[in-house]
Amino acid sequence: MSTETKVPVAVLGATGAVGQRFVQLLTDHPWFEIVALAASERSAGRPYADACNWVIPGDPPPFASEMMVSSLEPTLPARLVFSALPASVAREVEPLFAQAGYAVCSNASAFRYEPDVPLVIPEVNADHLALIERQRAERGWSGLIVTSPNCTTTGIAMPLKPLDVAFGLRQVFATSMQAVSGGGYPGVASLDILGNVLPYIGGEEEKIERETRLLLGHVADGRRVEAEVVVSAQANRVPVLDGHTICLSVGFEKRPTVEEAIAALADFCGPDAVRELPSAPEHPILVRREPDRPQPRRDRDAEGGMAVTVGRVRECPLLDLRLVSVSHNTLRGAASGSILNAELLVAKGYIK
Amino acid sequence: MSTETKVPVAVLGATGAVGQRFVQLLTDHPWFEIVALAASERSAGRPYADACNWVIPGDPPPFASEMMVSSLEPTLPARLVFSALPASVAREVEPLFAQAGYAVCSNASAFRYEPDVPLVIPEVNADHLALIERQRAERGWSGLIVTSPNCTTTGIAMPLKPLDVAFGLRQVFATSMQAVSGGGYPGVASLDILGNVLPYIGGEEEKIERETRLLLGHVADGRRVEAEVVVSAQANRVPVLDGHTICLSVGFEKRPTVEEAIAALADFCGPDAVRELPSAPEHPILVRREPDRPQPRRDRDAEGGMAVTVGRVRECPLLDLRLVSVSHNTLRGAASGSILNAELLVAKGYIK
Amino acid sequence: MSTETKVPVAVLGATGAVGQRFVQLLTDHPWFEIVALAASERSAGRPYADACNWVIPGDPPPFASEMMVSSLEPTLPARLVFSALPASVAREVEPLFAQAGYAVCSNASAFRYEPDVPLVIPEVNADHLALIERQRAERGWSGLIVTSPNCTTTGIAMPLKPLDVAFGLRQVFATSMQAVSGGGYPGVASLDILGNVLPYIGGEEEKIERETRLLLGHVADGRRVEAEVVVSAQANRVPVLDGHTICLSVGFEKRPTVEEAIAALADFCGPDAVRELPSAPEHPILVRREPDRPQPRRDRDAEGGMAVTVGRVRECPLLDLRLVSVSHNTLRGAASGSILNAELLVAKGYIK
Amino acid sequence: MSTETKVPVAVLGATGAVGQRFVQLLTDHPWFEIVALAASERSAGRPYADACNWVIPGDPPPFASEMMVSSLEPTLPARLVFSALPASVAREVEPLFAQAGYAVCSNASAFRYEPDVPLVIPEVNADHLALIERQRAERGWSGLIVTSPNCTTTGIAMPLKPLDVAFGLRQVFATSMQAVSGGGYPGVASLDILGNVLPYIGGEEEKIERETRLLLGHVADGRRVEAEVVVSAQANRVPVLDGHTICLSVGFEKRPTVEEAIAALADFCGPDAVRELPSAPEHPILVRREPDRPQPRRDRDAEGGMAVTVGRVRECPLLDLRLVSVSHNTLRGAASGSILNAELLVAKGYIK
Repeated sequence: MSTETKVPVAVLGATGAVGQRFVQLLTDHPWFEIVALAASERSAGRPYADACNWVIPGDPPPFASEMMVSSLEPTLPARLVFSALPASVAREVEPLFAQAGYAVCSNASAFRYEPDVPLVIPEVNADHLALIERQRAERGWSGLIVTSPNCTTTGIAMPLKPLDVAFGLRQVFATSMQAVSGGGYPGVASLDILGNVLPYIGGEEEKIERETRLLLGHVADGRRVEAEVVVSAQANRVPVLDGHTICLSVGFEKRPTVEEAIAALADFCGPDAVRELPSAPEHPILVRREPDRPQPRRDRDAEGGMAVTVGRVRECPLLDLRLVSVSHNTLRGAASGSILNAELLVAKGYIK
Repeated sequence: MSTETKVPVAVLGATGAVGQRFVQLLTDHPWFEIVALAASERSAGRPYADACNWVIPGDPPPFASEMMVSSLEPTLPARLVFSALPASVAREVEPLFAQAGYAVCSNASAFRYEPDVPLVIPEVNADHLALIERQRAERGWSGLIVTSPNCTTTGIAMPLKPLDVAFGLRQVFATSMQAVSGGGYPGVASLDILGNVLPYIGGEEEKIERETRLLLGHVADGRRVEAEVVVSAQANRVPVLDGHTICLSVGFEKRPTVEEAIAALADFCGPDAVRELPSAPEHPILVRREPDRPQPRRDRDAEGGMAVTVGRVRECPLLDLRLVSVSHNTLRGAASGSILNAELLVAKGYIK
Repeated sequence: MSTETKVPVAVLGATGAVGQRFVQLLTDHPWFEIVALAASERSAGRPYADACNWVIPGDPPPFASEMMVSSLEPTLPARLVFSALPASVAREVEPLFAQAGYAVCSNASAFRYEPDVPLVIPEVNADHLALIERQRAERGWSGLIVTSPNCTTTGIAMPLKPLDVAFGLRQVFATSMQAVSGGGYPGVASLDILGNVLPYIGGEEEKIERETRLLLGHVADGRRVEAEVVVSAQANRVPVLDGHTICLSVGFEKRPTVEEAIAALADFCGPDAVRELPSAPEHPILVRREPDRPQPRRDRDAEGGMAVTVGRVRECPLLDLRLVSVSHNTLRGAASGSILNAELLVAKGYIK
Repeated sequence: MSTETKVPVAVLGATGAVGQRFVQLLTDHPWFEIVALAASERSAGRPYADACNWVIPGDPPPFASEMMVSSLEPTLPARLVFSALPASVAREVEPLFAQAGYAVCSNASAFRYEPDVPLVIPEVNADHLALIERQRAERGWSGLIVTSPNCTTTGIAMPLKPLDVAFGLRQVFATSMQAVSGGGYPGVASLDILGNVLPYIGGEEEKIERETRLLLGHVADGRRVEAEVVVSAQANRVPVLDGHTICLSVGFEKRPTVEEAIAALADFCGPDAVRELPSAPEHPILVRREPDRPQPRRDRDAEGGMAVTVGRVRECPLLDLRLVSVSHNTLRGAASGSILNAELLVAKGYIK
């Protein structure tokens, strides 16, 4: 795709923490060019640098700093929009954009559970894009909405995918230790989390349990069928900046040996069409053999934050296997994940 | 027990972090009086204040600061010794004391798994002291060794005990988020743990799995019988100073409702003889109803660090119930736990 | 003072973090009894337990949990009110209470700089209460307002007082490393402070510089005269929960030796009338000789959080002496400081 | 310099934290090629991957992992050696290498204060290399030793240099808040630093005070003359991973306005010869105008960790100006600083 033909894109909710990540990641993207940054009325009409309290690493790119923030109206000069909106706003705004012909790649939870809206991790279930046809037909949209999962679910569904394919996943215990950046900005108060663990994140466990089944499910007759996997999640917040750590115990139809499981994980690469996308990691899953890895601070940035690192693959006295997963919650688990979805849409011809 | 009749006690390994806790907790104890502080040859012969780098909260008590550190010889003017020795040293030294007639209350793992050595949490399995008779008979000791469990196991076995009694425990998933003080001093390097999670603590998972079965087991014919419970543990270190947090999923013979489980937990009080011990908490288990409790920083000190606080009792999609437990790893889970064991020995007439 | 004659008191701004400290500290206070908890209209009329998200250690005292929150009207059945209001609200509300006859002990900055309002640390400048006469006369109040200083200033002015008395203070460099609890709740976002230092706290440096001069000043002819001390402050936020640490370099009229300075600090005890107050520490200043003390986590709780701990007293190549101070910012530096002021008012006969 | 002519280099003390940084930074360096990794006898003879517990971000480069660790004998096939040795070992080993003809770029403090050994930050005092002539003449060395300063001094001397040139520096107050990585590995115990400040780092204040005077001094008649600047330093450790923050108050011969000082800082670029070195940052000093910058976590990586970021430039009530500096202590302040020195040696013809 030559520079001349870059797809003009916009970011909805551009001033928040995830929005900032979109701006950062889309700067110099080979296929996409930011032409508008949109946010709530409070920010609209102001230069981005003024409207935005930049909280992620680095500085706002100069081109963005000077851009005037647009309002959330479906009149942006873009064909594709990335949504970093809060769920309640997304529920109102995203359909207006889809209706108006935009492809919406959403990081919000608002439409993840709609039966005709794909919830996609390209390496895991690129084929779920098939739902778009029904989505457009039933809703009368010329545009579309594709969603990416909750940041914690991403670190679970990715390593479970190749294990499911090879051994037939049946049961999952997942206990997460999640970074504070998952709560947005200002998010978690330092008085709550310094030297502490918060054993509760509102709505998170339900999302993890449901989205894991959706991602590992399949599409039949234009309808999404959930995977028959029982998932039990316990979500915790820990004083880590970025990177979610998840302890998993998993049960299978066919019990693999540890080495068979490691081989399935290490060999995983997703469909060919996905591997060639610009943001796709060379190895979606990295397997570490050291006894004390993965660790969020040391492994979250693997492959530019796009790989999930797993380790401690070992037998489980109760189910079949235990393992630990670390993934970058604001890259693979949020903005980068949506960008990969957008690249897939382009590659599959959904963006004209 | 009047002041005149206080039992003279010594602390073995008095200069380490757990040893310091023993010194702190035994100061002004109603039943015990420290008469000797013993440590390795490096420290022996020096005033305690010089030999010891005090790392726990507060200051060393003045009486202890001036005491000369003794060597680890079984010639101390005590009847009871508290052992905060590393396992490898404990293995050599503790039997010499037991042989010489001392009652050894050990915090070390060295003898926990010997079939004739009680591993005890008074509220959970005070009756395991019955093993002492066999211990003395077979080993020819006039003294004895009683051990207390690993700090993480304590936070698991205590809440599981009343649930086991009421509903028949069968399966346990335990994922721990453990404080750095559990690693002793200097212990975990700040470069490893600041803003990070370490998903591995050497030997910890095996200890948790085994000790939980031992503590919930019973004594028959002078022999300890492990409980028939399958335990799967995943141990993590998090940047918390004190207080271990554990996410539990548990399966029972008879599935309780959430409220039945909460009632069993809240009503738990251990045997009468234990409730009257000076260090026994009024409520060994505190149940919190807030959605985001227990938290290590906010709940570890409940009842002077002797209560285990549980919360988030709820159904589990895979087993029967999920809950979260927080306990103070260096108080209930270490020094205070051993002191409660010692008090039980006195109450049961084992210390003359 | 017998229980029957306890002074009925109220807390204004009772639901915030400092308000919670007042509630906690006034429970079982020998002289004071909480009869009302007042807060903004959002909270008024609700039970305190519902209106208040308890963020400080421990649990809300049961008597308070059930109390209905009053509105901020000067019709409370108290004679003395403790104000934990934000400055902007305090500016409106506190004079209404003083006008209506209440003694207001304020933790807010709103009136600290009024020439007729005492800014007091009892050990430092109890005699500034003399301003009250003028305050009442000029404002026509039957009540009064007495303020306590900014939490960081407290840790500076207390150790400087005896040095000023003995050696004539002239210059002060103060670089603070302040705990997050100083910012209230939710206060500092964890995304800002985890693994970080914030070299700026709005308005703090000006407060430190001015209040230090006021506290060390004197009252002449019913007017407050600032001390002729040049103060340069640099304020930083660090990832510490409680306890402000301050590095000081100080210049004097008469250069003391290190030992002379230590003697002046260690011997400091404030006026007799202050020493006998129920909340007064035995030693307002504790001097540590270890090279690496004071530390906020290890020294903030000295004497129930009422003592300031200093250490590293040594020569300065530029001015005369360097030293480090640690004090508890929400106890001595906030709620407990105001309570000590209130006790002084009672002892001096200002509360009928 | 073409690839064929890369200078063969070795790292002494290659297995420690700073040694690992050298290995990481020298991989793919345009001028240098690692041909040997040397360490103490404990590591010598083992593959680097085995001998080394990699603690810095990322993974050891594959070429290094397989290299056998050499002993610290001056028989390495290199012309230039980077020393990350502890001071006590450096004192013995570095002269042997200099004697044997190696150019030693040392990060150790062992020889920093020798009158004939340059202590260099290229942008600050590249001309001090002139001492090498005398060093070789007096010691009879065919090689040489050049040292780089203590990591904290670097963040002080760099911003003070242009201010000194423009306004005549006379007095400096420096209070540091230093990252734990400055203490090496394992370094600071997590039990000491979590949620805490340590107001003491052994020997640090003396190093800062002395080295600042040396770096800002000049060379006359082949001898180094200290700058006539009075420096008072207070060093603290804070729970930050990387990046030292320093609060400075400075007095000048000619008091500049804030804007004059900012202009001098922002325009600073060091000598031409330095600007062209491969590791030299485009802007050695970055000035931030936001009120709350610089911050260690957000600014340490500026210009690849080679720039010092300053901010909060403002007047001082006591001296002339106050400002805050942040620099990366293990990059600019350690390994990268030594590499820049080595590049300067090459550019100046000292490495044949």
